[in-house]
Amino acid sequence: MVLKVVLGLEYDGTAYAGWQKQKNALAVQVVVEKAIAVVANQPVATVCAGRTDSGVHALGQVVSFDYERNRSSKAWIRGCNSNLPADVRVLWVRHAEEDFSARFSAVQRHYRYLIYNRPVASSILARRVVHQPRIMDVEAMQLAAAALVGTHDFSSYRATACQASSPVRTISRLQVSRTGDFVIIEVSANAFLHHMVRNIAGVLMAIGIGDKPAHWSATVLSARDRRQGGMTAPPHGLYFVGVDYPGWSTDFGAMLKVPVNGFWSQSDPS
Amino acid sequence: MVLKVVLGLEYDGTAYAGWQKQKNALAVQVVVEKAIAVVANQPVATVCAGRTDSGVHALGQVVSFDYERNRSSKAWIRGCNSNLPADVRVLWVRHAEEDFSARFSAVQRHYRYLIYNRPVASSILARRVVHQPRIMDVEAMQLAAAALVGTHDFSSYRATACQASSPVRTISRLQVSRTGDFVIIEVSANAFLHHMVRNIAGVLMAIGIGDKPAHWSATVLSARDRRQGGMTAPPHGLYFVGVDYPGWSTDFGAMLKVPVNGFWSQSDPS
Repeated sequence: MVLKVVLGLEYDGTAYAGWQKQKNALAVQVVVEKAIAVVANQPVATVCAGRTDSGVHALGQVVSFDYERNRSSKAWIRGCNSNLPADVRVLWVRHAEEDFSARFSAVQRHYRYLIYNRPVASSILARRVVHQPRIMDVEAMQLAAAALVGTHDFSSYRATACQASSPVRTISRLQVSRTGDFVIIEVSANAFLHHMVRNIAGVLMAIGIGDKPAHWSATVLSARDRRQGGMTAPPHGLYFVGVDYPGWSTDFGAMLKVPVNGFWSQSDPS
Repeated sequence: MVLKVVLGLEYDGTAYAGWQKQKNALAVQVVVEKAIAVVANQPVATVCAGRTDSGVHALGQVVSFDYERNRSSKAWIRGCNSNLPADVRVLWVRHAEEDFSARFSAVQRHYRYLIYNRPVASSILARRVVHQPRIMDVEAMQLAAAALVGTHDFSSYRATACQASSPVRTISRLQVSRTGDFVIIEVSANAFLHHMVRNIAGVLMAIGIGDKPAHWSATVLSARDRRQGGMTAPPHGLYFVGVDYPGWSTDFGAMLKVPVNGFWSQSDPS
């Protein structure tokens, strides 16, 4: 009997050329499949929920693969982690029906984009947040974000190299909030086009710093033309935080919560 | 007229052999004095509020130095930061009387120790928190911490190499709290002995995981003997967060706030 094993992964994307294996560069998929193969004692081919770009982080990546024998959860988690570099961790394991796919069974995906918004960049979080020294107008960003919620043709927000057959996606939630020095963009959709979150973040940031008016996000959307869009925001602010499947989901509820200013930074003396 | 310039610094201690300059290893002090010298157009000798160890981070380090001309705050901050590596940042500048010393004028210093307390280590915060996979009893730790507050002979909690003339220090606050996967130790004192915070953290962690009873912190204290103490906790969980001076202080009020679980980690699927 073929079982489907499902693993929850977390990784710091800094050192990797993205999730997907490729020539001449190290991908997260390669180190993960190598570690799984050691525990499984056979080669495995994983399917993932979201193919993150180079430099993008994950707190809630999900992968699935076929396996014909039984292994305890402990064996998978400990076995994989002792064969993985410290910047990639297996957090949990579960089992699913043979027809489950981490990619095709996913009904909703969740991303978070972190902007560190104070005059001086963070020394501690250098490759974990994007720095924007100009103080952003979060209300304008939120107004701009609201215009993108729903089912739309996101041609203006997809990479020119995007290979998806349709540019139509449904954003169920797009929220911008500030907590202290952090500005956080949270977005949930059935699926995302290539660079879609980073292109949305780029437009919202341009609006946040006042380079563009709040209604520009809608203008870009209706143009259905990538050339009308904004800058692609840098990868190191982006986190793939979770996935929903029929009947269960990764714990992305946590993404609704926010960090508190002062934990990673401080204000001027008072 | 000699002016005293005071700078607020933040740094990721990972790449450095601590604050103080030394032979054969790069110290934070060296890169900071080099950057200041470029802006000042003359060599400078800094005095710091707390000489952090190798691998220890700072969010609220304070340094002072003599300078005879006027420079705007912007000139110091931008000038220094453009001559510093990304893991060291100047956050603010202020001026003080000639007799001010970042070290000798300090009346209170504040440190924070971060423990990441879940079964699997964090991929994202690898060198920014200490991992403890065994779930800790924060109430026992807090009980143990309370016994150390006040003026005591901290011989059992100082490094054998400590050169301070007296082992007596006054801890005004020592608080242990949990927020999600993080356990946070916050400590304030007039001054600290060498390795004092890390030795306190080592004792509290041993109590937290149940290797020692809560009253062990007091037993260690009354022994006045380093050999009766616990393990020195690793440096990468430690942050120097702020300093109080007569009439002003760095914004360590922020240290009372805490991060929210789910920002850097997530739970199992639900």
